[in-house]
Amino acid sequence: MDPLDDPADPADPRTADLGFARVDVDRAARTGDPEVVYGEGKTPDQVVAILRTLHARHPDRAVLATRLSPESMALVGRELPDATLDPVARAATLGPLPQATGTVAVISAGTSDSPVAAEAALAVRVHGSAVDRIEDVGVAGLHRVLAVRDRLAAADCLVVVAGMEGALPSVVGGLTGVPLVAVPTSVGYGASFGGVAALLGMLNSCAPGVTVVNIDNGYGAGVFAARVARQTAR
Amino acid sequence: MDPLDDPADPADPRTADLGFARVDVDRAARTGDPEVVYGEGKTPDQVVAILRTLHARHPDRAVLATRLSPESMALVGRELPDATLDPVARAATLGPLPQATGTVAVISAGTSDSPVAAEAALAVRVHGSAVDRIEDVGVAGLHRVLAVRDRLAAADCLVVVAGMEGALPSVVGGLTGVPLVAVPTSVGYGASFGGVAALLGMLNSCAPGVTVVNIDNGYGAGVFAARVARQTAR
Amino acid sequence: MDPLDDPADPADPRTADLGFARVDVDRAARTGDPEVVYGEGKTPDQVVAILRTLHARHPDRAVLATRLSPESMALVGRELPDATLDPVARAATLGPLPQATGTVAVISAGTSDSPVAAEAALAVRVHGSAVDRIEDVGVAGLHRVLAVRDRLAAADCLVVVAGMEGALPSVVGGLTGVPLVAVPTSVGYGASFGGVAALLGMLNSCAPGVTVVNIDNGYGAGVFAARVARQTAR
Amino acid sequence: MDPLDDPADPADPRTADLGFARVDVDRAARTGDPEVVYGEGKTPDQVVAILRTLHARHPDRAVLATRLSPESMALVGRELPDATLDPVARAATLGPLPQATGTVAVISAGTSDSPVAAEAALAVRVHGSAVDRIEDVGVAGLHRVLAVRDRLAAADCLVVVAGMEGALPSVVGGLTGVPLVAVPTSVGYGASFGGVAALLGMLNSCAPGVTVVNIDNGYGAGVFAARVARQTAR
Amino acid sequence: MDPLDDPADPADPRTADLGFARVDVDRAARTGDPEVVYGEGKTPDQVVAILRTLHARHPDRAVLATRLSPESMALVGRELPDATLDPVARAATLGPLPQATGTVAVISAGTSDSPVAAEAALAVRVHGSAVDRIEDVGVAGLHRVLAVRDRLAAADCLVVVAGMEGALPSVVGGLTGVPLVAVPTSVGYGASFGGVAALLGMLNSCAPGVTVVNIDNGYGAGVFAARVARQTAR
Amino acid sequence: MDPLDDPADPADPRTADLGFARVDVDRAARTGDPEVVYGEGKTPDQVVAILRTLHARHPDRAVLATRLSPESMALVGRELPDATLDPVARAATLGPLPQATGTVAVISAGTSDSPVAAEAALAVRVHGSAVDRIEDVGVAGLHRVLAVRDRLAAADCLVVVAGMEGALPSVVGGLTGVPLVAVPTSVGYGASFGGVAALLGMLNSCAPGVTVVNIDNGYGAGVFAARVARQTAR
Amino acid sequence: MDPLDDPADPADPRTADLGFARVDVDRAARTGDPEVVYGEGKTPDQVVAILRTLHARHPDRAVLATRLSPESMALVGRELPDATLDPVARAATLGPLPQATGTVAVISAGTSDSPVAAEAALAVRVHGSAVDRIEDVGVAGLHRVLAVRDRLAAADCLVVVAGMEGALPSVVGGLTGVPLVAVPTSVGYGASFGGVAALLGMLNSCAPGVTVVNIDNGYGAGVFAARVARQTAR
Amino acid sequence: MDPLDDPADPADPRTADLGFARVDVDRAARTGDPEVVYGEGKTPDQVVAILRTLHARHPDRAVLATRLSPESMALVGRELPDATLDPVARAATLGPLPQATGTVAVISAGTSDSPVAAEAALAVRVHGSAVDRIEDVGVAGLHRVLAVRDRLAAADCLVVVAGMEGALPSVVGGLTGVPLVAVPTSVGYGASFGGVAALLGMLNSCAPGVTVVNIDNGYGAGVFAARVARQTAR
Repeated sequence: MDPLDDPADPADPRTADLGFARVDVDRAARTGDPEVVYGEGKTPDQVVAILRTLHARHPDRAVLATRLSPESMALVGRELPDATLDPVARAATLGPLPQATGTVAVISAGTSDSPVAAEAALAVRVHGSAVDRIEDVGVAGLHRVLAVRDRLAAADCLVVVAGMEGALPSVVGGLTGVPLVAVPTSVGYGASFGGVAALLGMLNSCAPGVTVVNIDNGYGAGVFAARVARQTAR
Repeated sequence: MDPLDDPADPADPRTADLGFARVDVDRAARTGDPEVVYGEGKTPDQVVAILRTLHARHPDRAVLATRLSPESMALVGRELPDATLDPVARAATLGPLPQATGTVAVISAGTSDSPVAAEAALAVRVHGSAVDRIEDVGVAGLHRVLAVRDRLAAADCLVVVAGMEGALPSVVGGLTGVPLVAVPTSVGYGASFGGVAALLGMLNSCAPGVTVVNIDNGYGAGVFAARVARQTAR
Repeated sequence: MDPLDDPADPADPRTADLGFARVDVDRAARTGDPEVVYGEGKTPDQVVAILRTLHARHPDRAVLATRLSPESMALVGRELPDATLDPVARAATLGPLPQATGTVAVISAGTSDSPVAAEAALAVRVHGSAVDRIEDVGVAGLHRVLAVRDRLAAADCLVVVAGMEGALPSVVGGLTGVPLVAVPTSVGYGASFGGVAALLGMLNSCAPGVTVVNIDNGYGAGVFAARVARQTAR
Repeated sequence: MDPLDDPADPADPRTADLGFARVDVDRAARTGDPEVVYGEGKTPDQVVAILRTLHARHPDRAVLATRLSPESMALVGRELPDATLDPVARAATLGPLPQATGTVAVISAGTSDSPVAAEAALAVRVHGSAVDRIEDVGVAGLHRVLAVRDRLAAADCLVVVAGMEGALPSVVGGLTGVPLVAVPTSVGYGASFGGVAALLGMLNSCAPGVTVVNIDNGYGAGVFAARVARQTAR
Repeated sequence: MDPLDDPADPADPRTADLGFARVDVDRAARTGDPEVVYGEGKTPDQVVAILRTLHARHPDRAVLATRLSPESMALVGRELPDATLDPVARAATLGPLPQATGTVAVISAGTSDSPVAAEAALAVRVHGSAVDRIEDVGVAGLHRVLAVRDRLAAADCLVVVAGMEGALPSVVGGLTGVPLVAVPTSVGYGASFGGVAALLGMLNSCAPGVTVVNIDNGYGAGVFAARVARQTAR
Repeated sequence: MDPLDDPADPADPRTADLGFARVDVDRAARTGDPEVVYGEGKTPDQVVAILRTLHARHPDRAVLATRLSPESMALVGRELPDATLDPVARAATLGPLPQATGTVAVISAGTSDSPVAAEAALAVRVHGSAVDRIEDVGVAGLHRVLAVRDRLAAADCLVVVAGMEGALPSVVGGLTGVPLVAVPTSVGYGASFGGVAALLGMLNSCAPGVTVVNIDNGYGAGVFAARVARQTAR
Repeated sequence: MDPLDDPADPADPRTADLGFARVDVDRAARTGDPEVVYGEGKTPDQVVAILRTLHARHPDRAVLATRLSPESMALVGRELPDATLDPVARAATLGPLPQATGTVAVISAGTSDSPVAAEAALAVRVHGSAVDRIEDVGVAGLHRVLAVRDRLAAADCLVVVAGMEGALPSVVGGLTGVPLVAVPTSVGYGASFGGVAALLGMLNSCAPGVTVVNIDNGYGAGVFAARVARQTAR
Repeated sequence: MDPLDDPADPADPRTADLGFARVDVDRAARTGDPEVVYGEGKTPDQVVAILRTLHARHPDRAVLATRLSPESMALVGRELPDATLDPVARAATLGPLPQATGTVAVISAGTSDSPVAAEAALAVRVHGSAVDRIEDVGVAGLHRVLAVRDRLAAADCLVVVAGMEGALPSVVGGLTGVPLVAVPTSVGYGASFGGVAALLGMLNSCAPGVTVVNIDNGYGAGVFAARVARQTAR
């Protein structure tokens, strides 16, 4: 039966009803992606409950929770001792990570960009690829960019994370033809307007073939890059 | 010798000096991409001259010229009879197209989005992949989207072109896990602000793994998608 | 006597003077709508005082208070034991709800949109229509939208609440010809700009006949939809 | 068979393939609305061809073409002598108008708002309701607004068209409880920003129950208002 | 000696040096206006010190302090028992108010606009005119506006304070030819953008002869209006 | 009888019906201002017709037409030989100018601001005051500002016209206490954004008592200033 | 006598009255800069007249005219045979260029940036420094930037001209400590917003010590850089 | 060996690895500038650790830390007793300041601009020039500007700091030809938009040769000005 035709049955196995939320446990079947809990605006109790439910349905693969408050991080640590916490990414996983297929290089410009880069790297791992993490590569210090050319060329997909003027994707994109996803971060002040300057810089990159995700959206870039790397290495 | 160390020699074989422009004929070696002429702001004579120069250097692969004015289209047709003109994409190619590796599906919402979608499709072909072109698939008529699910799933990468509210990538992205690049177009009126509404809609897509290029930038989306499809099918 | 001609008499029966505010108790006569207290920026004591005054004037029909702070919610609960509290909508009513005429379907995309959708639903009830509440209907999971087509078609008016890219009204508006009011919510991050992305998406909807209210303005959408449903079913 | 499940058959009776466009002739069945041709960006020949095709399929009801260039208006007049031209609305209809059910009052502030108001009025007629057209009703001359109170109250739905500061919907909305759709126009200069000032004014109206459509979108307001008026008067 | 030619002498009698600020005590001589202390960003101690210094120099006329924090209000009340506090305007005066010349009518739309209107009214008094304060006059309830026509016409200058769509100046400006200064307030939510909607509405007013000051700038409007009223009544 | 109560009679003596426009000939009675024709968007024939109609009703006082195209200027000159043309202001008057009461000084920064300043000056004259016109007074050449201090102080109201950074009102406003209306012009390039930079500069002036009108709105500033000057000198 | 104190005498030798403009011929004395004519908005006749007047007053040093229309360029060529035309910069000079003191390197990213870079270079020469012009140095081709490191380090000041994402100043500023002025150009499309993306990128540069001028303001950057180079080399 | 060619060796003497950050200790060699720690977003412990490391490497010249939180200021004071704290600039230095070459005048408009001006002044000192600090020089009180003309003319470079309308650089730039860097501050309210009004005012300055840095970026202006002053006085 076509999955688009049957009614939204409360007993629908594709939906988990938690009272405060109905979780789409069918997305994996449709898109091949794991379950994810977006933690912003959710109470620590809700985060734990959703993680527990999703893990019970799919004990054989990792569930990811992102944008966790310090309180949610703490409660997940206490209530779900099998969970793995990533304090830089403000995220947690529960269940075994999939075997890695292909490699995504995650490059970031400054230490302030680390949380977004870490979220991207974790998303890549949870969605099935390996990560090569390259930090502190700013355009005002070109020798660092040039020093990692071989690692850039060896990857199946690149995620480039930068705030302020967002120029790093242009420089990296001029050095290699590997598919490149740029992530603007809200790092900056004054006329950076919370990441708008970096977003515009990346959308207007003079290097062809640069694509962009929303400000601070490390997760989205990681999902996309893992999809590319997985199918490349298959 | 490291290509980054030698001086900008006027006799540098990596640069073609045309008087009014020095063309970077080395990019192909560095990134694997063909030469491209961005026609906006160039006179018909300049377009013809650059196409001729680049073709003479690389007679074995196609050179692409985009954003051509009607006058440039006409002069290319007269002066370069071997060129192939694409009036919808406002573009031309000179030289043999490469053999196609992998497939990119280019989906567009309305007929007004056709020029951008055609530019994307041509860029895909010139950069080495096959194209599956799907037109007139708007979110206000879901049966058309649903009718092409199999073609979406069969592609190695998707390019989704839409103006107005830019909702099509969210709907398509919810149906499949194939990597998806969204292109906002400047189609719309009033508070569409020349494509800003569609751009924001795509950056905020609720479907994970959607990446975005600049408004009307069909070429950039095509380059990116071809890179993904080529390495997937290799 | 024409109501527009007499002076603003302190003893004017159309105005209730509470010291810190003069309340327009004549609006009901002019527009057929009940009294409403906008709670934002008012102290808990002021909210209770206005509710009590309006209820004393019109004990036979409900008064609505919206945008209540937790402190106002608590004080209303203690001081006005006959009031009904709606914690999701952050609102309260005092006095009997009117008999329902016609039905408004209130559809929301994600759980984060619930407060705005709940405010809309309560406004519909207070202004005299019945509500069919449909939750968790996102465009990235089309089977949920399609599963409720019959409920959409059965309503006299639709209120569609969505944040992020605001695409749900376009999809719903393509499935039915029932009048549709869209409510953008401030849910989202980065380039959602506090609901601007959703607002622009809805204003540029490719589905004809979609109208829009201000960001997070569930109350305004509910008033409008109830007016349409009431006069339809009369 | 569910209309959402069959493939996009070139022989699909729900689609008319004109070479340069596939027209969704099934929308009427789905939403009860007639066919409409959006003329902006189409050549006069294309406008005539689409009008002719749609009229041939549905000779018993009017087809509407909006946003016509002077050239398209002229060619429609010459090629389709049965068409009715509306030069103020820059629009044309072909085929018999439906019998009117219910009444929509279309109120505009200044003579510069006339084209948008005329487009709204024509859309109301084509979508099945009668129109009461009220012109030159600006908020800086209140006696004109007050003089038409009875006509406002007698309508089933109101369309209020205004540029500059967009204050007219607030004043009208305070006088009556009839459902009200506001249309901001691009009339104004300097910091009106092509209608943005009026759009923001209408979204922030202090009169409850005002909904808004895109700048200059008379058509959308007309469709919506006719739907409300038709179902009210049925 | 021309006051523009002598050097910035630390002993310059036109400047009072308080260590953390040099106060321009010469402005009164140059422009005829009293001294004013802008309290935002100043500590309570600084506010008291500046008020005390300015009062000592000019004991015969009032000094005004605006934008006071609750802490500054409290300390001024304790340390300067002769000061007069205005809790609605968040302001204080020290010294005798000047005799009033001419009358300014200060009209406000809603109770949330009261702080800005109260600041304007106090500024008018301190700068030498009488005030006629008219509250709760919204455009969605025209009978209140019409009821005060005589008071509007009797004033020498009008200050009209409104948030949300900022339509009140247009309506008032259409009723009378008295000079009118409009003050947008940051009251509103969603797409009011902190007063930008009201500001744009007022700048685009269809009533001729409306001038505007910055968002929430009751003080500036009061200064201007008092200057007009004073010279009119002289 | 209250003028706000009678219906919009086609024979209403307060309205002149010209077919394409109904002109509010009653405004003068209500606000004391003369008739004005806003020429933008009107054909030369319409401009001439409205001028003729208004002049016939009020032959004893001037009618003003602003924002005239070169074609309208030419036709007015041919058809209405008694009209006076002002080519810099792009405006015309018909009928005798009123006797001047009070004086308005109109100060402009650069020669590019002349059209707006000339419109303001003409509006002042038509609305009943005398004009002292001061040109080429930029803040980057302070000696010119300082040289006209006496003329500034002698005026009853100031109109200060400036583009680019819009700093002139701050400098002038620091030199005198005469009421000051600032007019931002669209002169500038790049990040002047068509006058937005000047508008923001004027709204944020550090000189107290500066009010602002819309970009390029010389007419509005002139009306306001004449009202102030007239009542001052009366 | 202090030049700021004497009145604006029509016979003032510091001002040249041309009827349509009073030219500030005193600026050179005050700031050491030559005379400049901003050609935008001026007729060809006016440009020629001002050039001739200024040259007559200072025959011993060059006068510069910028932003000339093709018509003005042609008339200057015909009427002033001693003038030197720069067609790329759209500018002309009349009179002998000063001897060069110090050197400014003017670096530009693409051929579309040439007009702005040429204007900057000419302004540098007219204001008294030598120019080292470096073209076609984009961040997506780093070897070109690196190849000119010695020329960058040898300059007394740098002017870096770039459109699109405006990343070149960050890369150059990371390679050297020479003072650097960045000029954003309006080159780009879509979300470049006429140079705003480049402007924001430059304001947010991660390289310290980068300053910025307005979009396309090559002249301003050239003036500034020449001042720095002149005083450095003196 | 070219410093751009060797790999990013963990033992690279140009990089100091602190675990949470790799510090670029090579920048001084490349650009002649000292080390700087940007304190925003760093914990007090991190600030102390980086200061200590950089000081150990270069004990003979000052290290600067900016944007310090009160907590970081306190910890630096306790842990690094040799550090010098600047509470107005919210900054600290460790190690001996360099001998001053040349002079930079730092001019600010109001007391609220002091923190930004103090950061600029400290940056000038740390980067090797002397400072002449001029405070409280607003355009609404011209006598203060005129009184310091001699100090302006005597400087090698000017840094002009202003909020609100940002007009001070235009006035100062008209008085002298010394190179001028303008710093907009976020001081203001309402439509100042956190410094955007001042930024736009400075970018559009009518005084030629004004360059601008980001909002509140006193550090960047100071670096630039010191570079200019150093090379001028050498």
